[in-house]
Amino acid sequence: MRMVDLIEKKRDGGVLSEQEIRYIVDEYTKNQIPDYQMSALLMAIFYEDMTDEEITALTLAMAESGEVIDLSSIAGIKVDKHSTGGVGDTTTLILAPLVASVGVPVAKMSGRGLGYTGGTLDKLESIPGFKIELSEAEFIRLVNDSQVAVIGQSGNLAPADKKLYALRDVTATVNSIPLIASSIMSKKIAAGADAIVLDVTTGDGAFMKNLDDARRLAHTMVRIGKLADRQTMAIISDMSQPLGEAIGNSLEIVEAIETLQGKGPEDLVEMCYVLGSQMVVLAKKAETLEEARQLLEEALNSGAAFEKFKEMIRQQGGDVTYIDEPDRLLTATHQIELPAKQTGVVTKLVANELGIAAMMLGAGRRTKEESVDHAVGLKLHKKVGEAVQEGEALLTIYSNTDAIDDVVELLYQNIEIGQTGEEPPLIHEIITE
Amino acid sequence: MRMVDLIEKKRDGGVLSEQEIRYIVDEYTKNQIPDYQMSALLMAIFYEDMTDEEITALTLAMAESGEVIDLSSIAGIKVDKHSTGGVGDTTTLILAPLVASVGVPVAKMSGRGLGYTGGTLDKLESIPGFKIELSEAEFIRLVNDSQVAVIGQSGNLAPADKKLYALRDVTATVNSIPLIASSIMSKKIAAGADAIVLDVTTGDGAFMKNLDDARRLAHTMVRIGKLADRQTMAIISDMSQPLGEAIGNSLEIVEAIETLQGKGPEDLVEMCYVLGSQMVVLAKKAETLEEARQLLEEALNSGAAFEKFKEMIRQQGGDVTYIDEPDRLLTATHQIELPAKQTGVVTKLVANELGIAAMMLGAGRRTKEESVDHAVGLKLHKKVGEAVQEGEALLTIYSNTDAIDDVVELLYQNIEIGQTGEEPPLIHEIITE
Repeated sequence: MRMVDLIEKKRDGGVLSEQEIRYIVDEYTKNQIPDYQMSALLMAIFYEDMTDEEITALTLAMAESGEVIDLSSIAGIKVDKHSTGGVGDTTTLILAPLVASVGVPVAKMSGRGLGYTGGTLDKLESIPGFKIELSEAEFIRLVNDSQVAVIGQSGNLAPADKKLYALRDVTATVNSIPLIASSIMSKKIAAGADAIVLDVTTGDGAFMKNLDDARRLAHTMVRIGKLADRQTMAIISDMSQPLGEAIGNSLEIVEAIETLQGKGPEDLVEMCYVLGSQMVVLAKKAETLEEARQLLEEALNSGAAFEKFKEMIRQQGGDVTYIDEPDRLLTATHQIELPAKQTGVVTKLVANELGIAAMMLGAGRRTKEESVDHAVGLKLHKKVGEAVQEGEALLTIYSNTDAIDDVVELLYQNIEIGQTGEEPPLIHEIITE
Repeated sequence: MRMVDLIEKKRDGGVLSEQEIRYIVDEYTKNQIPDYQMSALLMAIFYEDMTDEEITALTLAMAESGEVIDLSSIAGIKVDKHSTGGVGDTTTLILAPLVASVGVPVAKMSGRGLGYTGGTLDKLESIPGFKIELSEAEFIRLVNDSQVAVIGQSGNLAPADKKLYALRDVTATVNSIPLIASSIMSKKIAAGADAIVLDVTTGDGAFMKNLDDARRLAHTMVRIGKLADRQTMAIISDMSQPLGEAIGNSLEIVEAIETLQGKGPEDLVEMCYVLGSQMVVLAKKAETLEEARQLLEEALNSGAAFEKFKEMIRQQGGDVTYIDEPDRLLTATHQIELPAKQTGVVTKLVANELGIAAMMLGAGRRTKEESVDHAVGLKLHKKVGEAVQEGEALLTIYSNTDAIDDVVELLYQNIEIGQTGEEPPLIHEIITE
């Protein structure tokens, strides 16, 4: 088999066999296929697309290119959740204890934030003492004992994907549905998922800028999940504005606590019920999405989900006194309100730009090497469709410096106030098969 | 300027500016742009094509990436000729003295053969004593004195093209009209051509397998030649069967001598007149192609062209006694006739496969490092459309070994005899503007 022939085959619209794709991924991982051949193939895939069978073969080959986490010693169906990226997306922090509290085992590997998107690990590390590095044995013991644990992603999970992603990033081949789908699914499978729930975001703040692309990506991943013997469901959610009200690590922990106490923002709560219901159904703890939702609502309202959250924090070394007094987490030296410049209705809150503003405050990383400031971020008081009076606070900036002119300027540029405006739909579609 | 943005621009159908193309070629030549980004761009160009202005900018940037030969001290318009590759293509050996004999200065840089295509340098080196390595000053002096000289290509001619071609070869991006056109034209311009005549071959033995592609390539090169201020003409010729009757180095020298003596194969003679007429017109030694052809016919018939050939050989150290007794060049130890297995009409002589058969005998190189055997090759006795009797010789194999079973087998596989067959057209189109 010669790589140049495989590039030509794909370039001319051919379908690569499972064996050919396995060869490409294995040899590339071993540095036996050079980057310059792989990038030519990636560009050909960008133009020619891949069949579901090709994407599935690519996904499995990448998943098996490194360590594959074995969660078989955890009883039950392990359901993982993945979002294609958002701003102020606190769902994982809420969903993990919520679904665990109805008996779904949650063995979650999470990542750190980069650019305008936050990472669950960074958020959890806002809680003093919380440890995200556990041995695999300890991780499995925790999930078996209390149904939930969240750890950092292993360095050797799907190395082929890591190598490919770095290459795609510099060769303008990121925006390809088969490559995005296989990248996401390979990591979930390598992390040991039996079933997968996907939140495919769409809108300005998301990777998929339009609904058609989001729909194609969601359907592709659901189909290849099935071909790879992992039951998969997806929702297509709106990310034109941030989800919930908090953007920033401590701020989102506080928002998660409030949500688990029944005081969360309506959109975030709804998103958690929708995604959580899918997780519960895939874990076979309920027959229908409606039944699953009822279980989750009961767990939230009874306080069981919140107790599970505290249990999770405690088990992993976190200081739960902060959970009982969450205001102690908000240590930013400055809290500055951003007043509306006119009276009207909020018509736009550009999610990715607000994410960048939070990053500029220190909540996120420009590069992987940077550290984050857990205390800083934004708390929105008005969302799209809400009325606002001139001078009324649109949001509060949590900052550890008062040199925030550039942040303020960026925020004003990305918040529009008009005469009329409507709340955007939260969820565009639910894709269960 | 970031390469990834330029890849994305081309990928999305954008037009790269002259400045952007110059940046890409310059930085790539300096190894400041890695191969993996360049190959992604090449694949995007494969799909998105380039405008004439883009191809011209690419051509000039590559031409200027290394040494540019200055032929301005040679009086007159220097016309170069290039063929996109053929088998048994002896035209350069004939055209150089032929057009020189009517006053067109020929300062020719030639290459060596690779694979199934022969190279003019290898052919000339069949003549004992002939030197292809001359200093630039000596080269120019010879052309000024006697209107013609042929030397080896400088190592640093269009290094960007050399680097790009090696990359294209392993990334399935060879077959792209804008990349082929710019590669050819950049080398001609770097070699100092004021005007260019192109022989775009088509058919099984050629790079362009079909007439449409050949036509697109020819028109593209003629247009970009004009945009680059180099008057350019082209013909589209048939390379489904070899040109002339000889394939192999000494054999083609003998064929060139016979042609210059007025005893050449009809197709080769015609090709030389057609290409030569274009060269004469571009050099402004005649007003029309018809007038140019008349000049060339006179030069051939009067013996002036043959005398010019001998002068060229003598000037570059070649032993002209071989030119007067060309049979002395045919030193192969074995001359084996290949008999027809049936009576009928030759319907197919697959050019590239016959070229490979000659290569297997030693006439050509599998890799750049191999040496060639000047004495071996094939001499065709029948061409497509000609009648043949069972047992009659189709061709003679000139070999220095009698272990030629594989060559014989390959030849029989690629010579077809049917009941009826026609001579293919020699020249499909003449493109003068």
